[in-house]
Amino acid sequence: MSAETLTIAAKLFVENRKRLVKMLKNKVQEGSVVLLKGGVKQNRYNTDAMDLAFRQESYFFWTFGVHESNFFGAIDVDSGKSFLFPPRLHPDYAIWEGKINGEEWYRRKYEVDEVHFNDKNTILKVLTNLRTKQLLLLRAENSDSNEILEPPIIFELSDLPYDTSILYPIMAELRVFKTDYELDVIRYTCQVASNAHKATMKATKPGIYEYQLESGCNGAILHYGHESAPNKRKLVDGDLCLFDMGPEYNCYASDITTTFPCNGKFTEKQKIIYNAVLAANIEAFKAAKPGVRWTSIHNLAERIILSHLRDAAILRGDLDKMMEASMGAVFMPHGLGHFMGLDVHDCGGYLGDAEPRSTLPGLKCLRTTRTLQERMVITIEPGCYFIDTLLDAALSNPTQKNFIVKEKLDEFRGFGGVRIEDDIVIWADGNERLSNVPRTVEEIEQFMCES
Amino acid sequence: MSAETLTIAAKLFVENRKRLVKMLKNKVQEGSVVLLKGGVKQNRYNTDAMDLAFRQESYFFWTFGVHESNFFGAIDVDSGKSFLFPPRLHPDYAIWEGKINGEEWYRRKYEVDEVHFNDKNTILKVLTNLRTKQLLLLRAENSDSNEILEPPIIFELSDLPYDTSILYPIMAELRVFKTDYELDVIRYTCQVASNAHKATMKATKPGIYEYQLESGCNGAILHYGHESAPNKRKLVDGDLCLFDMGPEYNCYASDITTTFPCNGKFTEKQKIIYNAVLAANIEAFKAAKPGVRWTSIHNLAERIILSHLRDAAILRGDLDKMMEASMGAVFMPHGLGHFMGLDVHDCGGYLGDAEPRSTLPGLKCLRTTRTLQERMVITIEPGCYFIDTLLDAALSNPTQKNFIVKEKLDEFRGFGGVRIEDDIVIWADGNERLSNVPRTVEEIEQFMCES
Repeated sequence: MSAETLTIAAKLFVENRKRLVKMLKNKVQEGSVVLLKGGVKQNRYNTDAMDLAFRQESYFFWTFGVHESNFFGAIDVDSGKSFLFPPRLHPDYAIWEGKINGEEWYRRKYEVDEVHFNDKNTILKVLTNLRTKQLLLLRAENSDSNEILEPPIIFELSDLPYDTSILYPIMAELRVFKTDYELDVIRYTCQVASNAHKATMKATKPGIYEYQLESGCNGAILHYGHESAPNKRKLVDGDLCLFDMGPEYNCYASDITTTFPCNGKFTEKQKIIYNAVLAANIEAFKAAKPGVRWTSIHNLAERIILSHLRDAAILRGDLDKMMEASMGAVFMPHGLGHFMGLDVHDCGGYLGDAEPRSTLPGLKCLRTTRTLQERMVITIEPGCYFIDTLLDAALSNPTQKNFIVKEKLDEFRGFGGVRIEDDIVIWADGNERLSNVPRTVEEIEQFMCES
Repeated sequence: MSAETLTIAAKLFVENRKRLVKMLKNKVQEGSVVLLKGGVKQNRYNTDAMDLAFRQESYFFWTFGVHESNFFGAIDVDSGKSFLFPPRLHPDYAIWEGKINGEEWYRRKYEVDEVHFNDKNTILKVLTNLRTKQLLLLRAENSDSNEILEPPIIFELSDLPYDTSILYPIMAELRVFKTDYELDVIRYTCQVASNAHKATMKATKPGIYEYQLESGCNGAILHYGHESAPNKRKLVDGDLCLFDMGPEYNCYASDITTTFPCNGKFTEKQKIIYNAVLAANIEAFKAAKPGVRWTSIHNLAERIILSHLRDAAILRGDLDKMMEASMGAVFMPHGLGHFMGLDVHDCGGYLGDAEPRSTLPGLKCLRTTRTLQERMVITIEPGCYFIDTLLDAALSNPTQKNFIVKEKLDEFRGFGGVRIEDDIVIWADGNERLSNVPRTVEEIEQFMCES
C-alpha cells in the first residue's frame, strides 16, 4: 500500500454487476432481485482471538468489491440499481476499531446506488419499495471441493418467493472470463509473485532451513509444509527445491511454481527430469489457444514427459501403449492446471462445454475439461515426481511394470520431484504469460550465480 | 525450527493429563471416561483453498499436545490410561501430503497409552472394553467472547450416558495455573516476542509505511490494522508508534505492547503521557503478588494515570472523586490485563473467587476480577488514549466535565495513545517479568539511536 501499490477502482465491480444484469435480463421474470450475503468474520473456536484474518467470500467480492465482514448486497435486475447493507456498528466500535463511516461514505467508496445500514427490516423495506416479486439467491457448488456455499436464510424475507438455481451457473460462468480490469489486477499479482520467487531463488543456499524460505523442498510431496510435515529440514548441497507459492492481492490469486537446485547448479540427473517437465511446459504453452480442449493439452504434457523418461532409459516401449496404460499418472498424478481468479482454483471448470470428470488416474484430477476460450486465466503446471507409493503400485501392475526399467528407476528413488507452473490468459491468437521467472537450466544457473 | 528453537517434550501434556485425572478422581463415579474432540481443518467458504492454517483447539491441545486436525482423545479416569484416535487417512494422502504414519508412531510421539485409527465403532469398542459407565464431555463457555465450545456429537456413542458440566470448570481452572513445562514455553515465546519488538523499534523511522512494520501507529485505535482501517499511513516525523503484538509458539501465546516515537526522540507532550502510563505499569508490577485482587490493581493504575494528567493540568480536582466519577475509563477504556496461556485471552478469568463482572466503564472490560495466585500468567497493560468519542462524552457529562481543563485537553486531541504491556507470572514473593524490552524514555531513546 505504498505509492507503487496498484490501486483498485470500484469500476471493476461496477462492470461485473453490469455483466450480471445483462445476463439475467432476458432469463428472469420482472421484479427479480439478486440478494447476496458477504462473508462473516470468525473467531478461533470459542475464544475472542481474531487470528482468522477476514477474507471476503469470492462471489460477493466479485459483485461488490467489499472487503468488510457481514454485508448484504442487492441488485434490481429491472433497473440495474445496486444496494449495499453494511452492519450497523455499535457506537463502542469507535473506541475499539476506529471511525464509524456513514452510508454516504460507503456509497461513494463502492460506487453503488444506495447504502442502508442493516437494521431490522431494512432489507425488507428496500425490496418492498422495488416491488420485488422474486429473490435470486446464490447456492454455489464447487467442483473441486464438492462443498456447497448455501444461500442465506433471512427470516424477515421468508414471505418472498426465491430461486436458488438461476444465479450460480450464470455467476460462475461470468467469473471464468476475466475483464480488462480484472486482468490488470491478476497481472500485477503475478508480477509480485514472480519477484518473490526470484528473491527466494537468490536467498537459497545449502545450510539454511526450509522454513527460512517459508516453503518446502520435499518436492515429491505435493502439499508439503503442513502440521504433520513441517518444513524443518536443513538444505543440503545437491538438494532440489520446489516452491509452489503466490500471493493474493485484492482477493485475486497468483500461483507459480519454481524448481531449482539449492546450490545453484543442476546435476545431470536433475537436468534430465527438469528438462522433461520444461519441455512439457513449453509445448503446453504452444498448444494453449481458443478451441483446444484442456484434456488434450494434459495428455500432450504427459506424453512429452514419458518420452523424456524413455530417452533416459527409465521407461521402455511404445508411447501410445504407455498412454493407454495410464503411465503418465505414475509420474504426474495431478492435472495439468486449473482456472485461476478470485480463487486459486477458480470456479467453472465443469460448466460450459466441459466433459464429465474422468475416472482414470491423472485425468480424474483435472479441475477442468473445457475447451479454452479468450479471457480464461489458467495455470500450466506439468510435474514429474518419484513417489514410492505410486512406483510400487506400478511395479505390481501387470501391464504397467512392462514399461519400467526397474534398475534405472531405482536410481531415481528419493529424487523428489519437479514442477514448473506458470499462469496464462488465453487470447485470440494464443496466450499471454503472466508469470515471469527464470525457466531454463541455463537461465536459472545464471540467475542464481549473479550477485 | 532450527537448532536454537525450543523443543517441546510430550511430558508437558503427560503432566497435564495427570493433573486432570487427579482432580477428577474423587469427583466422578467409577467408569467415567473423558472424551475430547480436537479441531477440524476448514476450507475457505466452499472452495478447496486451505488458507486457514490449522490451529488446534486449546483444551484439546492442553490435554494431548496434538497439532494435527480431526483427532479424538480419551482418558480413563480410573486407570489414568490415555487414548488417541487419529483419522484413518486415505491411501492417496501418501501422494498428496506425505508419508502415512502408523498407530505406534503416534503413540510414541504423543506418549499416550494407546492409539487406534478412528474407523467405524473404534471409539465405541475401546470405551466398551473400559466398561465405561459415563462420558465426560467438554462444554466450554468463554467469558470474553460469550461463545460456547459445544461438546461433540458422536452417533455411535449415543447409548452411553454423558455429562457436560463437570469437565469445563475443572479443565479451565487447571489451565489458569501453569506448570514448569508450560512456563518454559511461555518464557521462550515472550523472549522471541521481545526480540521482534526490539527489531521493529530499530527498523522504525519517519518516511516508511505502517504496513512495512506490519502493525499500526494509530495508537488511539485499540484494534487498528483491520480490513476497514488498513495500516497504510506513512510515518511522519513526530509520530508516536504503538505496537501490540506477540507470536504464538507451540500454541502458547505472548502479548507485548511497546509505544515509542518513530524518530527515536520523545517530545515533551509525549513524555507526559508516556511517563503517566509507565508509572502505572511500574506500580502494577509492585502490586502484583498472591492475595491481591486484580480489580484493585486496575484501580491503582487508573488512579496513577489520573494523577499524572492532573499534574499536567489536563485534569483538576480531587482524585477520589475522579475515581468515583469513572474518569479513569475516559482515558483507559479497557481492563488492565488478562490471563495468558494457550489463548492470548486465556480462560478462567471469572472462575474461582472472581467477583461478578462490573457494569461500570473500564471495570466492565476486565477479563478477570480474581485474586492473584502463584503460577497465574497475566498481562499488565495500562494505557492512556485521547479518543474523541470518549472525550466528547465526558465533556457533556455533568459530573465528569468538572474535572476537565478543556483548553489543555484540546491540545492533546489527535495525540493518539500510549499503551505499555508486559507479561508476568505470579510467584510467592511477587512476580517474574517474561517480556524484556526497553521501557523508560531514556532506555528507548538510547536503544533507538544505537546502530
